[in-house]
Amino acid sequence: MREYLENVRRRAPLIHNITNYVTVNDVANMLLACGASPIMSDEAEDVEDITSVCAGLNINIGTLHKPSIEAMFRAGRRAVSLGHPILLDPVGAGASSLRTETALGLMRELPLTVIRGNISEIKTLALGSGTTRGVDADVADAVTEENLDAAINFVKAFAQRTKAIIAVTGAIDLVSDGKACYVIRNGRPEMGRITGTGCQLSGMMTAFVTANPEHPFEAAAAAVCAMGLAGEIGFGRMQEGDGNSTYRNRIIDAIYNMSGETLEKGAKYERR
Amino acid sequence: MREYLENVRRRAPLIHNITNYVTVNDVANMLLACGASPIMSDEAEDVEDITSVCAGLNINIGTLHKPSIEAMFRAGRRAVSLGHPILLDPVGAGASSLRTETALGLMRELPLTVIRGNISEIKTLALGSGTTRGVDADVADAVTEENLDAAINFVKAFAQRTKAIIAVTGAIDLVSDGKACYVIRNGRPEMGRITGTGCQLSGMMTAFVTANPEHPFEAAAAAVCAMGLAGEIGFGRMQEGDGNSTYRNRIIDAIYNMSGETLEKGAKYERR
Amino acid sequence: MREYLENVRRRAPLIHNITNYVTVNDVANMLLACGASPIMSDEAEDVEDITSVCAGLNINIGTLHKPSIEAMFRAGRRAVSLGHPILLDPVGAGASSLRTETALGLMRELPLTVIRGNISEIKTLALGSGTTRGVDADVADAVTEENLDAAINFVKAFAQRTKAIIAVTGAIDLVSDGKACYVIRNGRPEMGRITGTGCQLSGMMTAFVTANPEHPFEAAAAAVCAMGLAGEIGFGRMQEGDGNSTYRNRIIDAIYNMSGETLEKGAKYERR
Repeated sequence: MREYLENVRRRAPLIHNITNYVTVNDVANMLLACGASPIMSDEAEDVEDITSVCAGLNINIGTLHKPSIEAMFRAGRRAVSLGHPILLDPVGAGASSLRTETALGLMRELPLTVIRGNISEIKTLALGSGTTRGVDADVADAVTEENLDAAINFVKAFAQRTKAIIAVTGAIDLVSDGKACYVIRNGRPEMGRITGTGCQLSGMMTAFVTANPEHPFEAAAAAVCAMGLAGEIGFGRMQEGDGNSTYRNRIIDAIYNMSGETLEKGAKYERR
Repeated sequence: MREYLENVRRRAPLIHNITNYVTVNDVANMLLACGASPIMSDEAEDVEDITSVCAGLNINIGTLHKPSIEAMFRAGRRAVSLGHPILLDPVGAGASSLRTETALGLMRELPLTVIRGNISEIKTLALGSGTTRGVDADVADAVTEENLDAAINFVKAFAQRTKAIIAVTGAIDLVSDGKACYVIRNGRPEMGRITGTGCQLSGMMTAFVTANPEHPFEAAAAAVCAMGLAGEIGFGRMQEGDGNSTYRNRIIDAIYNMSGETLEKGAKYERR
Repeated sequence: MREYLENVRRRAPLIHNITNYVTVNDVANMLLACGASPIMSDEAEDVEDITSVCAGLNINIGTLHKPSIEAMFRAGRRAVSLGHPILLDPVGAGASSLRTETALGLMRELPLTVIRGNISEIKTLALGSGTTRGVDADVADAVTEENLDAAINFVKAFAQRTKAIIAVTGAIDLVSDGKACYVIRNGRPEMGRITGTGCQLSGMMTAFVTANPEHPFEAAAAAVCAMGLAGEIGFGRMQEGDGNSTYRNRIIDAIYNMSGETLEKGAKYERR
C-alpha cells in the first residue's frame, strides 16, 4: 500500500472538489494532509476552467443546490474530456428524491472512476431501495462478518454493472473493481461520531486515484486503509476529556504524519 | 436535568438543519457530540424529503440566501404537518431588513416550538427595535442582575404572545414558556470569543426538545445548562497558549463526554 | 507594530465578510481572536444593510457564485459611500476567467484599500498573466532573495497604478503603498499545508486597516507580521503527532493570546 500514498505526496495532484458546505474545510485540510492540493468551485460558469487546471474531480452531493447540480454535470463532462478520474460520493442518496436522482443522473452521464458511500447509499443506487437514515447507514444494511460473502458479491456485481470502482465504508469496508474485492478492517467506531469522515475519505481517495492512474483500484483501497489507520492512530492520541471535535483534528493530523511505511504496516486488509 | 440529556443519547434524534455556512460544521459536530444526528439541506426542492426522514427542524438565518429562505418555509410547513418541533435562531435580526423580515415571517407562518437568540435579536422580534450589533448582542440590551426582573417579565410576555418557548442567552440565560422562567448562570464570558456557540446551542437545543416531546420547556433549559457547563468544563482544560480555536474544540468535546449526572450536578439554574 | 494590534483590540471593529465557504469559520474565529467581530453575508438583498452596520469590508472570491458576485459589487458601493476600507482577496485569480474577471471588475469599480494575494494571483491582476496553480502560487513566480529587488519594484508599481496597498504573501511577504515597501520574513513553510491561512490573514488585515484609519499601510504590514509570528508561535507549540489540523488551531490561538509587545518583539521586517 505504501507506494500509493507516496505517489500522492510526490505528485501532489490538484483536486477539484464540488462538495457540501458542512465538511468542506476538513476535506480541504485532509487533501493537504495527504500531500494533495484542494480547490473548491461549484459555480457552473467557473467549474470548467477550474477542472481544467486540476487532475481529478471529487463530486459530493451532501448539500445540493440547483445551480451546483448543473456545475457537477458541466465539471464532469469536462473532466471526462480531459481524462481525469471522477469520484462520486452520493451523500444521503435514498433520503431524498433530489439526491437519489442527481446521483443516478451523474452515474448515467459520466463514466465514474469511483463511487464511495455507506452501504445504504450504495444499496439505494444499486437496487433503488435501501433504508438510508439521513446521511448515516441504517443498521439493517450494515456489512457484518455474518453477511460478508453476500455483501462482497453485491459490491462486485454493482462494480461490474457500473464499470466503476465501488467503495462501501462502514465497520468493515469493501472496495471492488468488479473482479476482486478488498475487505478492510481498519478504523474505529468512534469515527462515526465525527461529521465528515466519509467526505474526507472521498477527497483523499480522489487524490489517491489521481496520483496512481495505473492502479486506481489498489489506490482506492489504500485510501480506505489510510483513513481507517488514521482513525486508529488518532484515537490512540486521545486524552481524558477529549471528544469528537479533537478527534477530528487528530485524524487529519495522523494522515499528515503518515509515512508509506506506517501505512504498509498498519493496513489490515485481505483481497478476495 | 439529567433525563433530558439521557433521552437525547438514547433516542438519537435526526435533526434537519437549515443553517448558515459559517458555523455549520461545528453545529453538526455538536449534534453528534450530544448523541443526535445532523443532516443539512437548504435547497427548496430537497428540504421536504429531508425533513420527512428527520424528527426535528433547526432554522438558523445566519447567512440567508433567497433560495434558502424559500427552503425554510417549505421545510417548516412540512415539519408542522408531521408534528416536528421547530426551533428558530434569528441570527442578526435587527442588523438587516431581510433578516428581521424573514424571522418575523417565519414566526407568523409557523407555530415555532422555540425561538433562541441573544437579547438584541429577541428584542428586535418582540419590539421591532433592539440595537443589534451585527450578530452580537448590544451591551445596552444585556440581561444583568440589576434588570433581571424586568428581563424575566419581558421574556415571559413574549413567550405568551408567541406561544413559543423563548430562550435568551448571554451572561445570564433566560428560558420561558410564558408561565415560568429558568434563570441560568452557567457559562464563561470567553465563549463569546468563539464563533457559533449560539448556533451550536440552537442545534443541540433542537435535539433536546425533539427527544423530550413531553417536556420541551425543561429540555430547552437543560440544553442551555449543558452548553454553559461545557463552556466551564472546556475552559478548565485550557492550557497556556490555548485560545479560542482550541476552546471551540474543548466545548464540543465536553458535550461529547457529558453524562447526565455531570449535567445534573453542574447545572446552575433557578426556576421562577 | 504594537499599536496597530492594540487598536484592533480596543476598537473591536465589526467586519463584513463576503468570503468563501471553505475557510469561513476560521476567518470568523481569526477575527474574534484579534479582537474584531465578524459578520458574514453574501446575499445581494442583505449586504447593503449589513455593510452599513459594519466598519470594514473583506471581499474574498474563493468560491464565487453568480449571486454573490452581485453582492460584492453592491456591498462594495455601499462601503465606498460610507468611507469604509475594502480589502480584496483575489483567490484563484488566473485559475478561471470568472475569478480573474470578477477581481478585475471589482478593482475597476471600487477604490480598494488593500489587495492581498499570493504572487501568482497578483501577477495575474497586474500583468494579465501569472501561472496560478489553483489557489496556490506557482513556484516559478515565488519571491526569493534572488529576485527580491525586482519583486519589490513590481509590487510598488502595481500599488502606484491601483492606488491600493498591495500585499503579496509567501515565503517572503511584501506590502507596498506605492512609495515604500515592507519586506517581512515572519512565518513558517508549514502554514501552506493548512487551508485558509491566506483567507484568515485577509480577514484580520481588514480589521487592522479598519481600526487604524490613519495608518492603513503600516497596519496592513502589522497584520502580515502578526500572522507570520502566530505561525511561528503555533509551530513552537506543536507536539509529536500533531499535524496541519492542530496547527490551524494553534495559529488562531496564538493570535488570540498575542500582545502588542509580543508582536513588536517578534515582527521581522524591514521597510524599503
